[in-house]
Amino acid sequence: MVLVVGTIGLDSIETPNGTKKECVGGSAMHFAYAASVFGPVRLVSVVGEDFPASALQELSRRGIDTAGVSVAPGKTFRWSCRYFDDMDRRETLSTELNVFAQWKPCIPPQWRDSSTVFLANLSPQLQLSVLDQLEKPRLVVADTMDLWIQTERQELEELLRRVHGFVLNEEEARLLTEEPTTIRAGRSLLERGLQFVIIKKGGHGATLFTEQGISTLPAYPVERVYDPTGAGDSFAGGLMGYLAGRDKVDLRELKRALALGTCIASFNVEDFGTERLARLSPEELEERLSAFRMMLSV
Amino acid sequence: MVLVVGTIGLDSIETPNGTKKECVGGSAMHFAYAASVFGPVRLVSVVGEDFPASALQELSRRGIDTAGVSVAPGKTFRWSCRYFDDMDRRETLSTELNVFAQWKPCIPPQWRDSSTVFLANLSPQLQLSVLDQLEKPRLVVADTMDLWIQTERQELEELLRRVHGFVLNEEEARLLTEEPTTIRAGRSLLERGLQFVIIKKGGHGATLFTEQGISTLPAYPVERVYDPTGAGDSFAGGLMGYLAGRDKVDLRELKRALALGTCIASFNVEDFGTERLARLSPEELEERLSAFRMMLSV
Repeated sequence: MVLVVGTIGLDSIETPNGTKKECVGGSAMHFAYAASVFGPVRLVSVVGEDFPASALQELSRRGIDTAGVSVAPGKTFRWSCRYFDDMDRRETLSTELNVFAQWKPCIPPQWRDSSTVFLANLSPQLQLSVLDQLEKPRLVVADTMDLWIQTERQELEELLRRVHGFVLNEEEARLLTEEPTTIRAGRSLLERGLQFVIIKKGGHGATLFTEQGISTLPAYPVERVYDPTGAGDSFAGGLMGYLAGRDKVDLRELKRALALGTCIASFNVEDFGTERLARLSPEELEERLSAFRMMLSV
Repeated sequence: MVLVVGTIGLDSIETPNGTKKECVGGSAMHFAYAASVFGPVRLVSVVGEDFPASALQELSRRGIDTAGVSVAPGKTFRWSCRYFDDMDRRETLSTELNVFAQWKPCIPPQWRDSSTVFLANLSPQLQLSVLDQLEKPRLVVADTMDLWIQTERQELEELLRRVHGFVLNEEEARLLTEEPTTIRAGRSLLERGLQFVIIKKGGHGATLFTEQGISTLPAYPVERVYDPTGAGDSFAGGLMGYLAGRDKVDLRELKRALALGTCIASFNVEDFGTERLARLSPEELEERLSAFRMMLSV
């Protein structure tokens, strides 16, 4: 069982392979679908009155408990972006916070004993407010973005002192640590007392930093990428979904979790929004993990 | 036994970790040191009268036969560059062709039966002239650079029809194929009838394309990179050195070769020029390969 706090939104995506308007997305959405392959998920977020009820129903069918999703007066969070030809770089076209502008996450009382928690990308202030509502989580992992590094660095540093793991992308890691290389940035973050740090490198995979060593895994090579949106969140969902069911979080389990997150992210990009993950079966994941292992067997 | 044709030069390197003037380098040099870990190497290149004799002596001690290295009147090829803080991007400061301006590679008669051949980055015209001098090589692999894609595309396309494998970096692959993603660029090159294509991604590893499938391996994470110069050439040296000793070149052997090339390249960057490779032992390589496999075991 894993609890996630993050955004739900309606994303409009332009890619060289096509365009999709207002598909269901947001960090918590991609994360929840990915984590649900491993077991039940508790979802804390907010949507507006215009959010399609069917999308919440769909979540319930995947074992994602939406008791923590409040419906607020106003419109759902919206975001639009355009990907460049390489499908790795993108530009944000618009961001409408809408109901997120005023939202304060409230963990339902019966969920305050959650032991595995993911704080998806939100302001560090909100992420800290979630921690204040939890009893004694065994494993808390957080994500962030460049905006918070620039505007709420102090709160972010406090957050880093209160979580076990941290997941962020290369540019964010360099910005936060002011180290020029990814390896040094990861080391520097680890030295803040974190149990592990994962630096995501988009289509180039991810690097895990622990006191026991550094491990890099490549991305699973996807022949045709339709929409990279949410790849990082679904990666985190696979990672946390797996770890939630394990007794300990050591290097071996973290590497396995990294591999599973990588495989789930590779499905995520095969269709727009959460469409591919919404129909992903445990068997398909198992098959891709085997292919990934085969690829890495040298 | 592998034969390599390429440059020998004196490189001046500026990095955030230090500066080194006129260290022994060039594509054939990095390649030869790397391949020599697996067995004898035949080296075809040219140096000027100012090239240090001790550097050629050093090669002989590593089992690299320099009978194909001619000493021409004039100065040795020189190249200087500056690396940016991320140690991945660099700018060329100067290139002096010197003796390379007039050089025509001549394969010594006793080497014309060579079965495993690497055509390091040279003009496609020169690479083709080498092929014309060889009897019936079993495995020929070529490298190239953006300059030749822009200025000798027709000769390069002819070269591609006459070699078995092709090794190039991401930007070059996209430039040559006009495909926006690395996966599509690799596929497109493979469709020209090559047995395999390897696209190098600098600090992000390399992807192998064969009819049997696509495999990506990450780079081995090096804690402190001193000088990335020659990483791609030493990668190719490890790859070809290993393949030269194998009965067949199938997906399994290519993946093993890719892993060994990756490990050798990780040593290459640990010191300036060829210094680290010149003191690399087979035992150190074996140890790193074990660590690499352990890292990839998920």
